[in-house]
Amino acid sequence: MKEGNAKPRKPKKSVALCGVEAGNTYLCSVGQSGNDLHYRGYDILDFADTAEFEEIAWLLIYGELPTQAQLIGYKEKLRGMRSLPGPVRKVLEVIPASAHPMDVLRTGCSVLGCCEPESPQTRGTIDRLMACMPSMLMYWYHFSRDGKRIEVETDAESLGEHFLEMLHGEAPRKSWVRAMHTSLILYAEHEFNASTFTARVIAGTDSDLYSAVTGAIGALRGPKHGGANEVAFEVQSRYKSPDEAEKNILDRVSRREIIIGFGHPVYTIADPRNSVIKKAARQLSEESGDCLLFDIAERIETVMWQRKKMFPNLDWFSSVAYHKMNIPTAMFTPLFVFARVTGWGAHVMEQREDGKIIRPGAVYKGPENRPWLPLEKR
Amino acid sequence: MKEGNAKPRKPKKSVALCGVEAGNTYLCSVGQSGNDLHYRGYDILDFADTAEFEEIAWLLIYGELPTQAQLIGYKEKLRGMRSLPGPVRKVLEVIPASAHPMDVLRTGCSVLGCCEPESPQTRGTIDRLMACMPSMLMYWYHFSRDGKRIEVETDAESLGEHFLEMLHGEAPRKSWVRAMHTSLILYAEHEFNASTFTARVIAGTDSDLYSAVTGAIGALRGPKHGGANEVAFEVQSRYKSPDEAEKNILDRVSRREIIIGFGHPVYTIADPRNSVIKKAARQLSEESGDCLLFDIAERIETVMWQRKKMFPNLDWFSSVAYHKMNIPTAMFTPLFVFARVTGWGAHVMEQREDGKIIRPGAVYKGPENRPWLPLEKR
Repeated sequence: MKEGNAKPRKPKKSVALCGVEAGNTYLCSVGQSGNDLHYRGYDILDFADTAEFEEIAWLLIYGELPTQAQLIGYKEKLRGMRSLPGPVRKVLEVIPASAHPMDVLRTGCSVLGCCEPESPQTRGTIDRLMACMPSMLMYWYHFSRDGKRIEVETDAESLGEHFLEMLHGEAPRKSWVRAMHTSLILYAEHEFNASTFTARVIAGTDSDLYSAVTGAIGALRGPKHGGANEVAFEVQSRYKSPDEAEKNILDRVSRREIIIGFGHPVYTIADPRNSVIKKAARQLSEESGDCLLFDIAERIETVMWQRKKMFPNLDWFSSVAYHKMNIPTAMFTPLFVFARVTGWGAHVMEQREDGKIIRPGAVYKGPENRPWLPLEKR
Repeated sequence: MKEGNAKPRKPKKSVALCGVEAGNTYLCSVGQSGNDLHYRGYDILDFADTAEFEEIAWLLIYGELPTQAQLIGYKEKLRGMRSLPGPVRKVLEVIPASAHPMDVLRTGCSVLGCCEPESPQTRGTIDRLMACMPSMLMYWYHFSRDGKRIEVETDAESLGEHFLEMLHGEAPRKSWVRAMHTSLILYAEHEFNASTFTARVIAGTDSDLYSAVTGAIGALRGPKHGGANEVAFEVQSRYKSPDEAEKNILDRVSRREIIIGFGHPVYTIADPRNSVIKKAARQLSEESGDCLLFDIAERIETVMWQRKKMFPNLDWFSSVAYHKMNIPTAMFTPLFVFARVTGWGAHVMEQREDGKIIRPGAVYKGPENRPWLPLEKR
């Protein structure tokens, strides 16, 4: 692992089981030097802005980097898995427009599990889930808003392109497709984070892949986890200028308010994903001719570092990048799902191989030995 | 706590995080003396065969034993919460008859969350979920099999009665209603078991109650957890006589096969719930005039103790009791859901009060520092 100024990790008060080893993994190492992230031994900084998301999905799910022929075949296979069965479409049609997109994905994943039970080749079911999740979200989005039943079997080459094409109704520009690859790669895997750990706890009972992913979506939804990229945008878009942002954030910091998008339960020095997504966010901003949101986000980054020695995590500039691609805020966390389903699926397979149920203990703090009082005496 | 011959708990190899304290609880203590179970300080043996399930649901969710007036009001409130919104009915109507009932509940819970977001009074949403879960299952069951849209707003006094009445199309006999109270009470809460822990991991991200319960259902589904009561019945119904069962089980034990329904990750001496549910199973069997299944289950209990010093857990005789009430096997685990949703809900509130995200670490076992090879060179 990289040399770094890694401090020994102190358990954080805001994190339960912090630093406690809950199992083994071959998938990912996080922050071993304080600020590095490796997928199956490869440093994300070596490939995050050049590789394709599907290439990294294959690495995570199938275990090795694909050859060129394998990648072509894999993308072809995923393209063929974008359709939605009739019952899933009907379910999506009854979910109201007011629902949160994460609740839609949680429900869509669960109902797909009722219609197409997990195959004995789990990897095939992971691929299927990954390929059709954007279809679910976009089918519901257009139907619930405009009553339109969109075509979800596009010819788009990649998952990010597929999503953007269905969202905007036209083929996205190349720079957006590239930014989607980068973003999805960075969100694909992150060891025993809360949603992945949820998937592993569920898989530990020998339950099925759909149950594990449905539960993981529910965990990712929380603002302390995946939901943070939506909150990050809310923070950034509060301000009209970097100066106003600086003044207000300093004020909030002095009142000890927590600023979502900063700090991390595992990294001690920096989130290595930040520099990559920041670069992508800057490019998209410059291309659009409007760098205000980026400048505000960057100023807050500077202030938080100067005042609190806190660094932004992946969510901070992801929100800028997504906004620049005209993606509605409520879809920021669903994009995280599209990527992380690869990591969740791979962890489910690992947990099964491990063969253990995950069952910690609790400290009982309540009253002891209370005498029972029958109802008629109360 | 009771006196007992508690051995110090040794971490079990088949359990990850065994004995590791993942948080605090005021709800339940399990096996402190090796074979006792207390809900909020009350020994389950003091009330499991006399109290009503709704009384214990109130204790778990609201924190204290209800007065008579409170219990009457609570049951009235729950009776008024049995209906299903139109979209939920439509979703249940498209789920095929081949789906597992646990997948139906997982989906039903998730879609309800899309239609009726969690109320600021979380307890009210827990009550709602508890009250309408049997409606969901039975509505789907009759529609998917016979195309019949059943009435789910029955006047039945208790949850167990509500369920049995919808299942069989007639008011159940008193002894069955009593057995349902006992069974649901025993299944209501059990500290940091895998499904409850799932709910807490999800709640730790500040996600909503529906996400936590949906995930917990997915975890409970596994045969190493709630699914065990279905497997227990499969084992028991394999045999035509206690003698045949004994011979075959001895054979399996000598081949080191694991017999589902025996042993427990926490109890070291016995599962205190077993004697209670066994008594209920015996009564229902005698009343039916057919004790074969009970006798087979009891013989296997004897053999497992003599040979392996292993005791049955709650699932073992639950399966006999449920079978005697003509409940289809695939609904055994859903009954567990109807009860445990009280414990899950109460734990979600505790986890929120605790304010922590649950994020353990992992041991990385994979290759390190692999040099990246770009696609064109592979």
